Formats: sequence, C-alpha cells, structure tokens
Amino acid sequence: MTATSTTFDPAVYGITPGAAGDIAATPPGGQHQTDIAVIGAGPVGLFSVFEAGMLKLKAHVIDALPHIGGQCSAMYPEKPIYDIPAWPKIEAQALIDQLAGQAAPFDPVWHLGQQVVSMARDTDTGDWLVGTDKATQIRAKAVLIGAGVGAFGPNRPPLTGIEDYEERSVFYRVARKEAFRGKRVVIAGGGDSALDWAIELADIAAAIMVIHRRPKFRGAPESVAKLHALAAQGKIELVVPYQLHGLEGDPAAGRLDIVTVADLDGNVRRLDADILLPFFGLSMNLGPILEWGLALDQHHITAEPTTMATSLPGVFAIGDIARYPHKLKLILSGFAEAASAVHAAREICRPGEVMHFEYSTTKGVPGA
Amino acid sequence: MTATSTTFDPAVYGITPGAAGDIAATPPGGQHQTDIAVIGAGPVGLFSVFEAGMLKLKAHVIDALPHIGGQCSAMYPEKPIYDIPAWPKIEAQALIDQLAGQAAPFDPVWHLGQQVVSMARDTDTGDWLVGTDKATQIRAKAVLIGAGVGAFGPNRPPLTGIEDYEERSVFYRVARKEAFRGKRVVIAGGGDSALDWAIELADIAAAIMVIHRRPKFRGAPESVAKLHALAAQGKIELVVPYQLHGLEGDPAAGRLDIVTVADLDGNVRRLDADILLPFFGLSMNLGPILEWGLALDQHHITAEPTTMATSLPGVFAIGDIARYPHKLKLILSGFAEAASAVHAAREICRPGEVMHFEYSTTKGVPGA
Repeated sequence: MTATSTTFDPAVYGITPGAAGDIAATPPGGQHQTDIAVIGAGPVGLFSVFEAGMLKLKAHVIDALPHIGGQCSAMYPEKPIYDIPAWPKIEAQALIDQLAGQAAPFDPVWHLGQQVVSMARDTDTGDWLVGTDKATQIRAKAVLIGAGVGAFGPNRPPLTGIEDYEERSVFYRVARKEAFRGKRVVIAGGGDSALDWAIELADIAAAIMVIHRRPKFRGAPESVAKLHALAAQGKIELVVPYQLHGLEGDPAAGRLDIVTVADLDGNVRRLDADILLPFFGLSMNLGPILEWGLALDQHHITAEPTTMATSLPGVFAIGDIARYPHKLKLILSGFAEAASAVHAAREICRPGEVMHFEYSTTKGVPGA
Repeated sequence: MTATSTTFDPAVYGITPGAAGDIAATPPGGQHQTDIAVIGAGPVGLFSVFEAGMLKLKAHVIDALPHIGGQCSAMYPEKPIYDIPAWPKIEAQALIDQLAGQAAPFDPVWHLGQQVVSMARDTDTGDWLVGTDKATQIRAKAVLIGAGVGAFGPNRPPLTGIEDYEERSVFYRVARKEAFRGKRVVIAGGGDSALDWAIELADIAAAIMVIHRRPKFRGAPESVAKLHALAAQGKIELVVPYQLHGLEGDPAAGRLDIVTVADLDGNVRRLDADILLPFFGLSMNLGPILEWGLALDQHHITAEPTTMATSLPGVFAIGDIARYPHKLKLILSGFAEAASAVHAAREICRPGEVMHFEYSTTKGVPGA
C-alpha cells in the first residue's frame, strides 16, 4: 500500500485481467432466492452488485447476452471512454473488467444468455418472482432494472445471403481493430459509429469506402470534418449517395470479394472489398419489460431520481433505461443511481434494520 | 492502447504521479473572469472541472487549503477507498492524482490557500462576483459550491504548550505510516479515526496506547472488535476511561517524552511516548457561505437533486455540502452531482445554445 499506487491488482480479488468475459454463468433453470435481482449486466448493473455487497445484500444478475458488460463489451470493447471519474481514459472492456473485479468479492450469481420474460409479485411476502426464457426462477426481495436500451442487436441490412458472411467478413462491431489491417473495408452508414470507425481504421485498412444513402453525414460535427479531411487526403473514399445492394464472394468460406452498391436511380457500382461493416444502429427490444405495468416515459422507465423507485413497489430502474427530469445518459450517473437504488432496496430487504453508516475507507471489502 | 490495460499513464496528460500537490496555484489578488467558479478543490470539485471542460466551459477553482484534494489529501492521503466505481481499491491521494490528471487538459485556474469571503450578484448581467480573503475577485456566470464540510481543521485538545509539539511529535493526521515505525504512539479518541489508526499502526509502532474517556468505543462494530482482539494479543494497550492531561518533553526540540492522562477522579498516569495522535474530529467552518442567503438544511445547502440548483439562481451545490432527500454522502454520488450541475450551469453560461450531445467515446478530450 503506497500513496502513489494507481494500479489495480486483480489477483487480490481472485480474478485475472480480462477474466470478465470468462465469468462462470450458473446453469439455466432452477429456483433461486436472493435479496436483489439485477436485470442487465452492463456497467451500471455490475456496480450495483458491488454496492449491494457493501450493504451485505446478495445479488443475482440476469443478462440476455452470454457475457457480462452489455454494450461496452458487445459493441465497442476497444473504444476509449474519457468520462469515468478518476479514469482519464479507459477502454470499454477494461472498464467492465474493473467493475467485475470490484463486484467479485461479493460472489454474485450470473444468469447469462437468458432474457427475463416474466415478473410477478408474491402478494403474501412482497417478493418478486423473476422468470427467464431458460426456465430460471429467481425470488428476490427487490428488483433493479438496469437493462440499458433493452436486449439489443444490430440492424441487419436486407442483403440476400448476408448471414453466410457474418462474423467472417461482415461485422456489426469492431472487437479488434488489428483484424482489419491491410484489408479493403466497406463501411455502411451515416452516423457516429460509421464515421468513428472510418476515421479509426483509416490508417490500418488498405482501403476504406464509406457508403451512405445521402451526401450529408449525421455524426458529430468534428467527426464529419475529420471524415472529409481524410477523404480529401485520399485515405477514405466517400461513396455517396449510394445504398448497399448485394454481396459477392465465397459464401461457403465466408469470403467476401465484392460489395455492390446502387444509387437512387438503380445504377450499380461494384466495390472490391474484403470486409463489410454495416452500422445501421441497434434494434432495441425492451421485450416484456413494457408489459409489467411500470410507468413509462417514451420507452424508458419513470424513476424517482433520489431512490430510483419505479411505479412498482420494490422495483428500481437504473442507468440508461431510467428516466427522470434532467436525466443525463452517462455511465457515471448510472453508478450513482445504482448506489441510490441499492440503499433504497436495502430498506425493503432489511426493513427496520438500522444501518451503521460506514465509509468504505473504514470497513473495506472482503479479502481486501 | 490494449483492452486489458488498467493503468493510468499520467505522462499522457503532462503530469507526473503525485504531482497533484504541486499544481501551480495562480498568485492571489487580481480580477478574473470565467464561466464557472468552483468553490472547493476536493474530489467532486475536481471532477466538475473535467465535466465543465467536456462542455467547453472554463473553470476557476478556489480552496482554503494550499493544495488540491480537500480532506482526501489533507486528512487521509494513504487510506484506501473501495467504492469508487471501476477502482476496486484506490488510496485517497491516488484518487486525487487521477482526478487532477483528468481535469488537467482543460487548464483550470487554481486559487489555493484562499477562502471565499464574499459572493454577490451583478444584477445587470446575472454574473456572480466571488471574492476571497486574499483579494482575488472572480466574475463567473455560474458558481458550484463543492465545499465539503467547509474549511476545516482538527479539534485541538486543550493541553498547555501543545503547539510546540505539533507537526513534530503531535499529529492530527497520518500522512505517512512509516514515520511511526518503532515509535511509542499514544492515540486519543474513541471514534473511527482513532480505531482505524490504532489497528493500522499496531504492526508498525513499538507500542500503541489508546486513550478514551469512556470504556466503550464509537467506531464501526468490526473495528471495535478488531481493536479488542489486538488488545487481547497485547499489541494495543487500552487506557480507559482516561482523558489527556498534559505533555512532557523538550518543547524547543518538539520532542515528546511523556503523555500524562487522568481518570475521572483526577488520578494521573504517565505514559512513555514519542508520538501523540489526537483524533477528536474536525471543526468545520462553513464561514461566510452561511451568510449568502442560500436555503440551508442543518448546515447543508438545499439542492434540487437533478440539477443541484440551490435557492440562488446560477449557484449550484455538489458533494457533501449538498442536501436533498435520500442524499448519500458518497464521493461517487458527488461525481454524478457534478455532472448534473455542470450540465445545468451550461444553460446559464451558453443560453439558447443547442448542445450536440456527444459521448466521450466520440469526441475524446484535448490531447488524448
């Protein structure tokens, strides 16, 4: 323990760096009982596990994805994030690893690759019964919904046979930039993801072609300016206004040779390409969450901002899915919401029990 | 840039580790103009500088202490904190260093060693004029008060001549534990600080004697249990119920030889000692803040929880000094409050200007 140490030793917590992806999910099915059921294993859900542990509450976490980390891990693991307090720069997956390490001492139970499909209240006890599509049943005294934008997936362009190329030459996310070194890359889309990756990959790929159905791009003004600058330097080719039209290659091998694009009059252009990255946003699916009787505000759950209580007793909303006046969709705001929700949930889990409020500096965490 | 990197390279931000204490304060006096004046350079004040920078707002920061970091740096720089999100364990001073590094790219102006003594509104422009006891004048469009518990100092026990020993053999904080290796240490007090340091120093000091006027200690139950366990092992001597009575030694050299203590009947005991650590809490002084017409709630500033707006237009309260229902006095909650306050302040600093909301992943920070 030295005053200038700024590193995290995951070994202290019994985890290895990057191990977040390898977290052992519990087998689906079965009946479980816990203090808090957390729906969503994104950064805010992970932090709520830690906060619950600090208040001696046990947590079970459910996520539709087969891994923890939510969008951070699924969509942009290598992207640096700059606004996590006390982390001037941290990549999304590293953030998840840190949060997993912080939650680990409290032994949460992970129900991964399962979507919550039912939630019903036991009116005798006030407990909530949470059920998943894999027949897992969790009885919890409180439920925290940190489901982000809901179960989500990329919008797939309507190209015949695209599934043969997916995860081999067609990707909806960039997990590792180096995989595209020296490749001819077609990027489709006009928003921030398309722009950001075109800019990021300009020095790595052999060629970058950006397809957009309109000449004007929607992204952040600085990104749009950078895109045009790179185009002027010949590092990026802007193929506008064009839309994706078809794929040619060896579907059995998953090898792409040509991406065809068409303009508004139906004129087709053939682009030599090894890789297609379609960035048409995510389709979000809040699924049955919408049917549980929660008060909603435009597909978000209305929450009281100091406790994150929803319209259902014992149910709290945290992170991007929660909505209240002046809500900021920042991960750091979600962390504070998680703390508020867990403190409020504690009153339900341990009614009447007086808490001796302790700072973490006083009591530390198990094993630390 | 690797996905598993968990370290912070301060060189990237042009600062050296531990440099937070060496931040160049601007000379006192003079007239200054800025978007946001931040009162208090503790962790929450520091993070608000970063948030302001992300929204292209300039910040000036004023603190009564001669260094940044507030209580973290002044009172417990070596203490580990466990509940900063994505930092499973970080020492208080390291937290401050990280936050200073995060704020550095935005070039805040530091007015240190100065206490705010006046705050008045320019009714023509709506600006606030903030004045310090060193004749510094800052004109700001918005003011964030992140003053923690106010300007603070340790409660000094009423022992004749104690000032001769202060900072030589009497200390009100532990800046470096190693300084007490092999010393005979008297710790006075019955709260968490006394307990924590008795436990922390048990293996370092030659002897630890804990003086408390009552047999019962007030700290966290786990700490009290640990104290008694160490006492049973003979590693700590509990001198209870006793109160501090006097100091003997060489005042000119600042060398302590004996601490005398007295029981309730006035019987005096003489303890051989090299070091006295009195932990009788802090005396807090909100000073003139109380006189500015802010709505208060038991020495805290009443704030609206989603914007941190106070009862004065353009004045926001963040961190421990702010009070709203269900408020948690956690550093992480203060970070989120800082973000909320800065976003609300932006509407005052840049009225009518539409913000293109960008995630930090999209735009990054200067120099990153």
